Amino acid sequence: MKEAKVPDIVVSRLPVYLRALEFLAMEGVETVSSAELAERLDLNPAQIRKDLSYFGSFGRQGRGYNVKGLIEAIRQILNLEREWEVALVGVGDLGRALVHYQGFKDKGFRLTLLFDNNPQKIGTKIGELEIMDSALIPKLIPERGIKIAIIAVPPQEAQKVADALVSAGIEAILNYAPVNLKVPPHVKVHYIDPVVGLRHMTYYLPRQSG
Amino acid sequence: MKEAKVPDIVVSRLPVYLRALEFLAMEGVETVSSAELAERLDLNPAQIRKDLSYFGSFGRQGRGYNVKGLIEAIRQILNLEREWEVALVGVGDLGRALVHYQGFKDKGFRLTLLFDNNPQKIGTKIGELEIMDSALIPKLIPERGIKIAIIAVPPQEAQKVADALVSAGIEAILNYAPVNLKVPPHVKVHYIDPVVGLRHMTYYLPRQSG
Repeated sequence: MKEAKVPDIVVSRLPVYLRALEFLAMEGVETVSSAELAERLDLNPAQIRKDLSYFGSFGRQGRGYNVKGLIEAIRQILNLEREWEVALVGVGDLGRALVHYQGFKDKGFRLTLLFDNNPQKIGTKIGELEIMDSALIPKLIPERGIKIAIIAVPPQEAQKVADALVSAGIEAILNYAPVNLKVPPHVKVHYIDPVVGLRHMTYYLPRQSG
Repeated sequence: MKEAKVPDIVVSRLPVYLRALEFLAMEGVETVSSAELAERLDLNPAQIRKDLSYFGSFGRQGRGYNVKGLIEAIRQILNLEREWEVALVGVGDLGRALVHYQGFKDKGFRLTLLFDNNPQKIGTKIGELEIMDSALIPKLIPERGIKIAIIAVPPQEAQKVADALVSAGIEAILNYAPVNLKVPPHVKVHYIDPVVGLRHMTYYLPRQSG
């Protein structure tokens, strides 16, 4: 499969392109040039063209990309032609916010399994989902064949939870805990860390003199 | 200033390197090669060396980088030699999670101002911080000289909040709402979107047959 050779850094940019294209589609935009897309993303147009060229030929010279067509193509490349079930571990403030998050809708993901180890929470419901005992991770995740999990537990519990998830068959972890997780090579981890975003922006803020 | 010419894509990777280096420092690692750092980050060592070369010469041939020294250098490049005050707008589940987030500590940021427009929340405290009326954004942000804000309000309110923040002097916005914000060119926006991370990882998950 030729896609196996695409550098991860290129793959990592596709979801960013896809989000920008989805915003354009919502605004009713039908075609977009790589220059317009690049400006919106604060990127270089040549990079966008080069990144996309790994996967085939999109858009026609001088005509730009068809927005809907490129959305479909990138969704296919990113393995988003199905809906993925996602398990969430840790139903504190952040976990509850994720259950109510409006950004998952129509994006390919659905939270379908919630875990917490707090006896006061286990058995209660958020919306239609019952909070399950984290001790059931080894049973329920393989039963449902779930491959993706979100970790939203306190930092000191994150590695233990990751170990349980990996043993249960999870292959992709979105980690909100500010700790570096150790996982086997076949498991992908993506960190959600507000500090990374803040530190990117401070580069552009005025520097203190004196 | 030569740094003004550094491509944003390079700047965007520095916080990721910095986080990895901080994890290494916590583990007691004193020196690291670009190959080791690259492996940890799933990146190409040549890219790390090239990115860092924009800012000077770090590490010695064959000896790798001194972890603490490189941390200090990147913090200086990213304008992190001071602590930045941050305003948070929207104290729902996500906002509360951010107030309690343990990842800001010693990373250069401190939440010091909370806003919400819910009369039941205004005047109450979370930890030591009182929740202020969002109507006071135009007064309190310039008074404190705050330049960075986090938006954690529902999507339909996000643009209105962004407008108020920008008018009040905010130049960097970390946006958790799943909407594309329109801001003037001098304002940076960084999106925190779990869908981007999830979609990056699905690329590597097994594809459904049939």
